[in-house]
Amino acid sequence: MKILVLHGPNLNRLGKREPAVYGSLTLEEINAQILNFTQERGIRVEFFQSNHEGDLVDQLQAAAESMDAVVFNPGAFTHYSIALRDAVASIDIPVIEVHLSNIHAREEFRHKSVIAPVAAGQISGFGSASYLLGIQAALSLAQSRRN
Amino acid sequence: MKILVLHGPNLNRLGKREPAVYGSLTLEEINAQILNFTQERGIRVEFFQSNHEGDLVDQLQAAAESMDAVVFNPGAFTHYSIALRDAVASIDIPVIEVHLSNIHAREEFRHKSVIAPVAAGQISGFGSASYLLGIQAALSLAQSRRN
Amino acid sequence: MKILVLHGPNLNRLGKREPAVYGSLTLEEINAQILNFTQERGIRVEFFQSNHEGDLVDQLQAAAESMDAVVFNPGAFTHYSIALRDAVASIDIPVIEVHLSNIHAREEFRHKSVIAPVAAGQISGFGSASYLLGIQAALSLAQSRRN
Amino acid sequence: MKILVLHGPNLNRLGKREPAVYGSLTLEEINAQILNFTQERGIRVEFFQSNHEGDLVDQLQAAAESMDAVVFNPGAFTHYSIALRDAVASIDIPVIEVHLSNIHAREEFRHKSVIAPVAAGQISGFGSASYLLGIQAALSLAQSRRN
Amino acid sequence: MKILVLHGPNLNRLGKREPAVYGSLTLEEINAQILNFTQERGIRVEFFQSNHEGDLVDQLQAAAESMDAVVFNPGAFTHYSIALRDAVASIDIPVIEVHLSNIHAREEFRHKSVIAPVAAGQISGFGSASYLLGIQAALSLAQSRRN
Amino acid sequence: MKILVLHGPNLNRLGKREPAVYGSLTLEEINAQILNFTQERGIRVEFFQSNHEGDLVDQLQAAAESMDAVVFNPGAFTHYSIALRDAVASIDIPVIEVHLSNIHAREEFRHKSVIAPVAAGQISGFGSASYLLGIQAALSLAQSRRN
Amino acid sequence: MKILVLHGPNLNRLGKREPAVYGSLTLEEINAQILNFTQERGIRVEFFQSNHEGDLVDQLQAAAESMDAVVFNPGAFTHYSIALRDAVASIDIPVIEVHLSNIHAREEFRHKSVIAPVAAGQISGFGSASYLLGIQAALSLAQSRRN
Amino acid sequence: MKILVLHGPNLNRLGKREPAVYGSLTLEEINAQILNFTQERGIRVEFFQSNHEGDLVDQLQAAAESMDAVVFNPGAFTHYSIALRDAVASIDIPVIEVHLSNIHAREEFRHKSVIAPVAAGQISGFGSASYLLGIQAALSLAQSRRN
Amino acid sequence: MKILVLHGPNLNRLGKREPAVYGSLTLEEINAQILNFTQERGIRVEFFQSNHEGDLVDQLQAAAESMDAVVFNPGAFTHYSIALRDAVASIDIPVIEVHLSNIHAREEFRHKSVIAPVAAGQISGFGSASYLLGIQAALSLAQSRRN
Amino acid sequence: MKILVLHGPNLNRLGKREPAVYGSLTLEEINAQILNFTQERGIRVEFFQSNHEGDLVDQLQAAAESMDAVVFNPGAFTHYSIALRDAVASIDIPVIEVHLSNIHAREEFRHKSVIAPVAAGQISGFGSASYLLGIQAALSLAQSRRN
Amino acid sequence: MKILVLHGPNLNRLGKREPAVYGSLTLEEINAQILNFTQERGIRVEFFQSNHEGDLVDQLQAAAESMDAVVFNPGAFTHYSIALRDAVASIDIPVIEVHLSNIHAREEFRHKSVIAPVAAGQISGFGSASYLLGIQAALSLAQSRRN
Amino acid sequence: MKILVLHGPNLNRLGKREPAVYGSLTLEEINAQILNFTQERGIRVEFFQSNHEGDLVDQLQAAAESMDAVVFNPGAFTHYSIALRDAVASIDIPVIEVHLSNIHAREEFRHKSVIAPVAAGQISGFGSASYLLGIQAALSLAQSRRN
Repeated sequence: MKILVLHGPNLNRLGKREPAVYGSLTLEEINAQILNFTQERGIRVEFFQSNHEGDLVDQLQAAAESMDAVVFNPGAFTHYSIALRDAVASIDIPVIEVHLSNIHAREEFRHKSVIAPVAAGQISGFGSASYLLGIQAALSLAQSRRN
Repeated sequence: MKILVLHGPNLNRLGKREPAVYGSLTLEEINAQILNFTQERGIRVEFFQSNHEGDLVDQLQAAAESMDAVVFNPGAFTHYSIALRDAVASIDIPVIEVHLSNIHAREEFRHKSVIAPVAAGQISGFGSASYLLGIQAALSLAQSRRN
Repeated sequence: MKILVLHGPNLNRLGKREPAVYGSLTLEEINAQILNFTQERGIRVEFFQSNHEGDLVDQLQAAAESMDAVVFNPGAFTHYSIALRDAVASIDIPVIEVHLSNIHAREEFRHKSVIAPVAAGQISGFGSASYLLGIQAALSLAQSRRN
Repeated sequence: MKILVLHGPNLNRLGKREPAVYGSLTLEEINAQILNFTQERGIRVEFFQSNHEGDLVDQLQAAAESMDAVVFNPGAFTHYSIALRDAVASIDIPVIEVHLSNIHAREEFRHKSVIAPVAAGQISGFGSASYLLGIQAALSLAQSRRN
Repeated sequence: MKILVLHGPNLNRLGKREPAVYGSLTLEEINAQILNFTQERGIRVEFFQSNHEGDLVDQLQAAAESMDAVVFNPGAFTHYSIALRDAVASIDIPVIEVHLSNIHAREEFRHKSVIAPVAAGQISGFGSASYLLGIQAALSLAQSRRN
Repeated sequence: MKILVLHGPNLNRLGKREPAVYGSLTLEEINAQILNFTQERGIRVEFFQSNHEGDLVDQLQAAAESMDAVVFNPGAFTHYSIALRDAVASIDIPVIEVHLSNIHAREEFRHKSVIAPVAAGQISGFGSASYLLGIQAALSLAQSRRN
Repeated sequence: MKILVLHGPNLNRLGKREPAVYGSLTLEEINAQILNFTQERGIRVEFFQSNHEGDLVDQLQAAAESMDAVVFNPGAFTHYSIALRDAVASIDIPVIEVHLSNIHAREEFRHKSVIAPVAAGQISGFGSASYLLGIQAALSLAQSRRN
Repeated sequence: MKILVLHGPNLNRLGKREPAVYGSLTLEEINAQILNFTQERGIRVEFFQSNHEGDLVDQLQAAAESMDAVVFNPGAFTHYSIALRDAVASIDIPVIEVHLSNIHAREEFRHKSVIAPVAAGQISGFGSASYLLGIQAALSLAQSRRN
Repeated sequence: MKILVLHGPNLNRLGKREPAVYGSLTLEEINAQILNFTQERGIRVEFFQSNHEGDLVDQLQAAAESMDAVVFNPGAFTHYSIALRDAVASIDIPVIEVHLSNIHAREEFRHKSVIAPVAAGQISGFGSASYLLGIQAALSLAQSRRN
Repeated sequence: MKILVLHGPNLNRLGKREPAVYGSLTLEEINAQILNFTQERGIRVEFFQSNHEGDLVDQLQAAAESMDAVVFNPGAFTHYSIALRDAVASIDIPVIEVHLSNIHAREEFRHKSVIAPVAAGQISGFGSASYLLGIQAALSLAQSRRN
Repeated sequence: MKILVLHGPNLNRLGKREPAVYGSLTLEEINAQILNFTQERGIRVEFFQSNHEGDLVDQLQAAAESMDAVVFNPGAFTHYSIALRDAVASIDIPVIEVHLSNIHAREEFRHKSVIAPVAAGQISGFGSASYLLGIQAALSLAQSRRN
Repeated sequence: MKILVLHGPNLNRLGKREPAVYGSLTLEEINAQILNFTQERGIRVEFFQSNHEGDLVDQLQAAAESMDAVVFNPGAFTHYSIALRDAVASIDIPVIEVHLSNIHAREEFRHKSVIAPVAAGQISGFGSASYLLGIQAALSLAQSRRN
């Protein structure tokens, strides 16, 4: 199984960025956790981070050909990028939306995701564990498709 | 570790109830999956289902004294029960909100959870696996608290 | 044919409760009218009233197994009980929503029914006759299903 | 007793028009059902259909002088014709609003009737039976006025 | 000077229609008052009433060629007839919007006029005197144009 | 008959203030027009202008004891001064709301008057003639009260 | 005089529940304060707390027969329980709505009470003293009814 | 191929009506352009204009039997005539909505078309060329249906 | 203890002003009741009424230096005077908002207080007793501060 | 004449992307159709597609110098990219907005275009023919400018 | 150059009033800073503070005759005083709106200024420096007018 | 001191782009003004303009390491780029939002900035002087931090 872990804008600032909200781990440390977790389970992962909406659209489109699932933290794009929504809707592999913080407990405008309606599901609020849960959700979806 | 798995209204109808939306497993089968999963990991679980908002409030309050976490599918109450929100807010153990279906992909009124802002986090859209991910989220929260 | 006549909250106060809005008949007198009407037509009816949302959910679920239709006056729950909406949606027998007063002619918040979108239809404004029309609607739906 | 059965715009297309929504009966067949039903009960009915809002206003005004009640399916005008609302409000005989489909289960804009607040009541969702229930509602209102 | 006095839907029911709101004068009596008032001042008036939006549009268009001003009570059309709004906007003579009742003191939906933004002005709440004030407003506008 | 002509904030700037919207007459010239008009008809008028909401409230209260009617241009207060609304509602003499410009043809926030629902009526859009029409409306209301 | 003191959901958690918002007194301590206060004044009180909306409806209905007034803290139900609103509206004794915290100073959704429009009045923000003020308000209402 | 070109209210005033918005061509000149254009391509067209909503509904219904497509400029009815929307939805031939002006660049209330959701498509903003593009769109739709 | 009793606009009209809403007592009679009540309890009170928002702001600011609490009925300013809200927020002594009528049972726009979020609490609906309850609330707040 | 055909995000996925909505042609096939169509008419076209908002802004700015018109399908950016709106507004050549699907018949959020108010016009719903109609609209606009 | 520095309600409480929001400087200290700053640059300033909306309107009107610009902190009036908006619109000299705190970072209702649309510009969030920047903006506007 | 001057989308079109709104200076001329201004004061500035949201995010992140402040004109991104908002929030140096035009005096959608709530402050409406005021604001903030 091959999974793309896709990080949206400003996630490259993790650790330095509002640690009360996003925790003190850096993106590298989170990626290392994910790598650890997936290697134990024989899953191959690739990582990509960008502050550019278009790059993320490009990556999602490319993943449609080479990946089995995407674990996607769209960051701020969660709330307005219909381009990303359409990219998710245009590909056949499951996309699992994840968030470090509980977006439903923050500012009103963060409660709404324009991407969630076309994602397989959403996991929100468990810090870096959100990514690991996302990986497991991808496994579970793959399993239930196989059945 | 002791976890309460709390099921809201109409979840006792699972299997019979709109299987296109909620899947074909019965609540008993889902509980069996959870039991299986938790026994392997040495976690003790208790199950409770009710169609009565007040019963769920009572259970949450009681769990505050005897449980380490709650995995809670509030069903329809997700969208209007401020009494349940206040019960969740009034207890110190983490409450993880889970949903079988992707509530963000359904009718507009199901996109909003009045409970999520006071829950630890929300997991939505992975069928019965949402519960298992919820258990794992509870474990992960317990771990990060211990650290 | 077996029909459950289900009365929501505060309907046990009929006669005593704002007679200008709800008429001067008591619930017992309305039930007697219904009994009269259905006995003439060889229909079996059962009556249930509760101020508890959960009890009404329980009754709807039970009716799915033993009744052919439900004539349901959800009272105040009409306007916010998504739990009742989901209960109605989860059962296969037709549920006919009835109201004594014309809810569309009262306060703004009473114009909207969260239950009507999943009910077979709605009858509103004819006093106790709303129930009798509801019984007839149930008959008519049964007939057209048979054809 | 004399009742006007008033059909709004596009109802002359019944049978041909979206049968999944409105059923397969033509307007003539529905009128025949109504005639059958009323003749058995010694009620005189007149039928009128128009795609012109002004014609329907004219008919309602005329009915005030010569009819005992109106059973009115305002079709699309239900949702915006304040002229029809004012016509209904300006006459003393009861007007019963009926709909073939359950308007509360359709597009958001069809949930609201500008006419219902001044009608005697509303019956929605029972196909051609909605008209027959409307006739019976008119009878029941006449009876309760006589008492 | 020639003025068209244009009456919208249901105004032919005046006297019979909700006299608490609209007063006890019939439309004929109001027209007689207007005739009286204008003859004294050497103004020629024509009267037209219709329940048909299209007829009122036709009349406004015709008035553009033969009249100096229109005193227009659009009745219920005030609140939704953009066709009438466009007709008023498409003609060069001043149109004065008048209302018997104070529309700003009635139901919320009557507070808004879609026609007023393209009318010369609005007079509301003075019973039949609203028409006479409208005639005087037309005179005053004509005078200030001449200067 | 005694009438108070009450001018709200910034009307003392007339002539100098946005003449395209409000005309080129000064407040003194408008008052002179009104005086001319009322003296011919044997009406006594008093004038008062203030930029202070409280002064206008005081004047309305005082007018209740000594005047037969008020012709009131509330200026900007039209749109938010509930204190003025309550003052108008608290006195028994008729208050006629007048506006130089057609407020319904200007910015959205000027379409709504918080005062109109408790005024006798509203006249809007006829320049200084709005005041003269207001005086005539007051006469007409007095007459119809006498009858 | 006999007064029912009715406590809504989660108030049994007082002291343990968000003391920064609700204070550090337990419900038992508040009830003791009330008992003290009422015994001095010769008033008989009964206490009832429930997390079940239906139980509170039942109690309000029963109070109509045996009590002179109700001092009611509806807790979270304040904001959505139309069933409780209808129960309050259906009984003739005065119901005084009280809140420990100032609900108008908290989250937006707590500013609105669906019960207040049918209550005698509302007292909000004075901690346990809100109940004592509610008792005094009941006394005062009883007195003014007697006059 | 036979196409009905249907013009809504006030379009008979073209040339005379706000030429800055709608251009200086009269309706006759536009029809002549269309005739020219269609004759070259062997298409038969019929023209119909009315200020009466009901007439346009009648024409759409009749076109269902005798035409292959409708090019429809609903004018002001675009924004509120659900009766026209339902007429369009009730017929099987494609209806192409066209507008002279760019309705999306005008007043807010003109941005929304209640008809577009059931039309084949919408063309807006190209003056009289909008009609010619509409004819071509009809041709193209016919072609793609044939394939 | 020294308390300022502050009355907002139009309260000087009490007795004369809509007695069905505000009762038949004059402001002088209410002040006398308050004086009676406070003298018995050894509290010093001062009274101030104004129709001028600025005067009320000035008084609140002055009270900050010389008073222990303010019992404030802001009248119509309740619903829009952010200047008064800021004045209340800028002073350290508690301000208790009181209303004669139950503002939550009146027009929609009176349900919302812009001042309540910064007041200590709100008491609404008990006629002149609202002031006396306000005095007691001030006492109770003073007591709990002392503890 | 030189026209830029500009394709927004995800249009490079055409054929593979939700063919029920967007048709089964690939972007290359559509471009070929356009090339065919324009070559016959002696028009030079250039094509550009990007998933990057900034690239589309850059292209629009460059087109201002070298092109006579732009036929622009903004894809998902239609609904939120004010940057593209401003780019369109900042250039003098006409921009024709086109859509494959009828955006007015899809999700609510797709009904609104932030770009249309500054575009020359909008064509929506005719599949790949929308582009060809857009080219013709550009021709027609050029012609009418020349006259 | 002569500039009026105009301070709105509660600004006389600066230093004492919520220093976390507004800083610890008193109004006198801010005025001294401004005086210092302007004297160095040969600008004459006058200061005026009032809690009375009417006084501020009066001052703005007077400034039109004697000043070259106004630097205006409308305080709470920013958000609702249309009277001040109209006063600003009625005078020809530039009015620069300034705020100590960043109003866009505070409560939702403070984000909107009713005055800004008619002011020359707005400066918000720099503490007392906002005034000095306002003075410089006035200089800059004067300069660019002279060119 | 080192300041980054950051220009958002379409600002490279200044001079050519709607000069009535944005003035006739080109971006180069504005940058020259800024350079002039800062060199006199010994401030080092860097300039960056992009039409790409991601580039602006990248620049803000980089500035966190090498700059003391950012003067940022986000152009169209002001109104929807939550990615830029999060970038601003994630860095510790002050970001001053500036606009050439008075955004509060333009289209409704331009009144709201999603960036302002996390910026140090906002300056809007003074043409190129807005940038110079922004530089001065940055100086002032630096000074007050030092104190």
